[in-house]
Order: sequence, then C-alpha cells, then structure tokens
Amino acid sequence: MNRYKAIISYDGSRFSGYQIQPTGRTVQGELEKALSTLHKGEPISVVGSGRTDAGVHAKGQVIHFDSPLPIPLEKWPKVLNGLLPTDIAVQSVQQVSMDFHARFSAMGKEYRYLVYQQKERDPFKHHYEYHYPYPLNLNAMVEASTYLIGTHDFTSFCSAKTEIEDKVRTIEQIRIWEEEKGLVFQFIGNGFLYNMVRIIVGTLLEVGSGKKYASDIPRILEGKNRELAGKTAPACGLYLWQVFYDN
Amino acid sequence: MNRYKAIISYDGSRFSGYQIQPTGRTVQGELEKALSTLHKGEPISVVGSGRTDAGVHAKGQVIHFDSPLPIPLEKWPKVLNGLLPTDIAVQSVQQVSMDFHARFSAMGKEYRYLVYQQKERDPFKHHYEYHYPYPLNLNAMVEASTYLIGTHDFTSFCSAKTEIEDKVRTIEQIRIWEEEKGLVFQFIGNGFLYNMVRIIVGTLLEVGSGKKYASDIPRILEGKNRELAGKTAPACGLYLWQVFYDN
Repeated sequence: MNRYKAIISYDGSRFSGYQIQPTGRTVQGELEKALSTLHKGEPISVVGSGRTDAGVHAKGQVIHFDSPLPIPLEKWPKVLNGLLPTDIAVQSVQQVSMDFHARFSAMGKEYRYLVYQQKERDPFKHHYEYHYPYPLNLNAMVEASTYLIGTHDFTSFCSAKTEIEDKVRTIEQIRIWEEEKGLVFQFIGNGFLYNMVRIIVGTLLEVGSGKKYASDIPRILEGKNRELAGKTAPACGLYLWQVFYDN
Repeated sequence: MNRYKAIISYDGSRFSGYQIQPTGRTVQGELEKALSTLHKGEPISVVGSGRTDAGVHAKGQVIHFDSPLPIPLEKWPKVLNGLLPTDIAVQSVQQVSMDFHARFSAMGKEYRYLVYQQKERDPFKHHYEYHYPYPLNLNAMVEASTYLIGTHDFTSFCSAKTEIEDKVRTIEQIRIWEEEKGLVFQFIGNGFLYNMVRIIVGTLLEVGSGKKYASDIPRILEGKNRELAGKTAPACGLYLWQVFYDN
C-alpha cells in the first residue's frame, strides 16, 4: 500500500462544494468515484486539506489517498484525469510517507479572491470572478487590510453558524493588486474559519466603496460579533490557491 | 421605431448554437425572449451578423433589432442584461439608421482560435480553449498559413454539408502567436464558410505536429476536396472576436 499526495484544481461552479453530502454533486464524491472505478469497485477514501463551499474554486487543493496499484508515478495524473469529469483535474501526484495527512500536515493556505470591475457583466468571467462595477479606493482597502494581518480572534469575520470554539487565527499576508479590469485579493495564513475570506473581502469592499472606514476594522475585530463586519462576498470569486506543507 | 445595433458576448458552452432551432437553447432565442419580455410579450426579431455553432463563443457578435420603447440609449445594456441569462451579455448598444443590417452591412469578421498546451487539462480552460498537449512547430504553421491568405476557393476547408455554391472567400490576415501556455490563431476575412476556421486550424495543427507539410497547402486548396484537409478542430476553442462595418 502506498500513500499519494495529489494537487488538484476544480471549477466549483457546478459542485455543491468539496465535501461529500447526502445529496448533490461534490468534488470529494467525484474523486472517490473515479478511484473506486480504478480499484474495481473497492471504496477508496480521499482526504482533502479542507473543504470548500458550493461555487468556490480551487487552483491547488491537496488531497491524499492510499492505493496498492502498481501504477508508475508519472502515469497517475493521466489515469485519474481519464476517469474524472472535465471540471476536476489532477495536476500532479507525488508518493508520500504513510504519516502524511492532507489536512493535519498542512502548515498554511493561500486563498485568492478575484473581482472584475467593467460596467457590463462578462459571460466568460461571471462564474469565476465577482462582478463589482463600482469605483473602489485601493489605498483605503490596503490600509484596512493591515489591521487584519497578524494573530487575532476572527469571530467577527466568521459565519455565526460555525461550531468551532477557538476563533484565533494568524493571517501572515494580505495583498491587494489591480489587474486588467479587476482586483486580486491574496490571503496567506495558518488557517481560515468558515466564510472568513469571503467576509473579509466583503468588508474590504465596503471600505473601498466608502461605506466603512479603514479605521473601523480594529473595533470590528474587538467586537467579536459577525454583524459588525460587512456582507459575505459571493462564492464565485474565491479560489483555494495553494496549500503549504513542511517540505 | 428605432433600430439598435448591439455588441454582445456569450459563452457558447451551454448553447445549441446562435441560431433559433425547433429544439435546444440558442443565443438568438434567449435574446428574442428577453426583448419580448421587455416589450410586454410583443415578438421582437433579432438579426445577427451570422450564426455560430454549438459550443462556439463570441466576444463581439453584432445584432440588430427594432424597438419603439423610449429607453435612453445608455440604459439599454443594463436593461437587457437584467433580462438575459448570465452566459450572454450586451456590451454596448448604439442607435443606427433603419438601413443598417447586422448581416448584410458586415464588411468582414475576425475569429480567434485558442489552444492550450500544458500536460494535464485545466478545468478553467477546458470549455474555452482546445487542449492540445503535444509539441507544435510554430514556424511551420506560420509558413502554412501564408498559402491560405488571399482570395481562394476554400472548398477543401469547408464542411462537405454546405449548400452554398460559391466557395471563394478572401482571408486578409492570419496571425499565430504564443501566449502563456498556449497559442492564439487570428483570422480576419470578408466571410467564412461553414466550419472553415475550425478546418483551417485542424489542418495547421497537423502541419505543426508534423503530420502534414506547409508545402501541402497549395495542393489541398487546388484539390477542392474536404478530405484533403485536416480534422475539424473542436468548437470550444473558437471565438467570433469582432465584426467589421463601414464606418
């Protein structure tokens, strides 16, 4: 039996999210179905670095699974891609030691959130970036983001539905830059709470459009109340960009 | 009654093509449905510059329609986009004289064909570019393309199903360039036959991969036989990029 780590990307538009559910098409479900077919019907479990919500995309989600099949390492991506639907693709497969775990071994993650700003919607971007056709003050958003970098209790930036008790997380980096007709928000941290990136982006957009001030952020953090922060930005703009592991 | 010219873009993936058919979702059908809703159920005809096949995209398709509604010109795109599905978007609307005709007034068209070449498929590109993970000789393809520029009988590069008798067309420009992880094929001409761009691209790819020689092209043109040219490249890589009008 060998353990494999795979980097996968998926277009989240037509999934009910990453994690298997009683109903709905999921990324994990499609991965396990493909692996089971390859193993002649044997069920094969797939462990991901974490879940992503319905409509959220991944450029570099990481999974692991175990297999006894004598497939040469370089053949694995093509074999799996031949069995997977076209909205999921395995980018690379690596053999790892049996103590590697896609979730527990993860040291941190990078998420990106894409916004496009042209006046009328673009049918090629509509499921892949958030359409925000109003002016935004980049400097104000960058200033607001500096208050969020570091170790904080992110209760105000977390879905009120979350059951996790410890809401302290560390954001190592937030960068915001302009690209042709849009903006990229980049977040690197050791872990992110449920809806945390989308609530931060929603709040930064309210700062960028003048509905909130950058200097409101410290009070929002201190208040530990979801209602103080901005709206949750739509899922379609969010990408799990990469997962970091200790070498 | 006023006549309006609109530039529209659409993601062709989920359409049975541009033109209304007895069954299947079409771009023209969705446009006429939106316009009819806006005109309280009155049927409104939409005339396009030409049809595009199932799966073919448009960045700059041009249509015209007539309307008596007193909607200010600058409001038209937003009004129509509010009624259209998210895979079609009106980019701009212009008022034109009643003798403007989207098809008959068109002087020429630009098509682009996009190819991506990375080893494993990319779920974000799969319906928008043709996945061709084999090496291609750009110089050979450029050489082959020079034989196609100008006025020729393109019978060999036209679906055998076509009923049009005159298969002489003029290609003013073919450019091929590399972009990050892929290639762009650009075609500008006064008119294109059914499947012509896709058959030319399929043939150029056979030259690029060494299955045909650039110097085969003159004989393929002279033979006036569809079987001499290469395979029809898939619809997903093709874009109607823009339509040219006098003035």
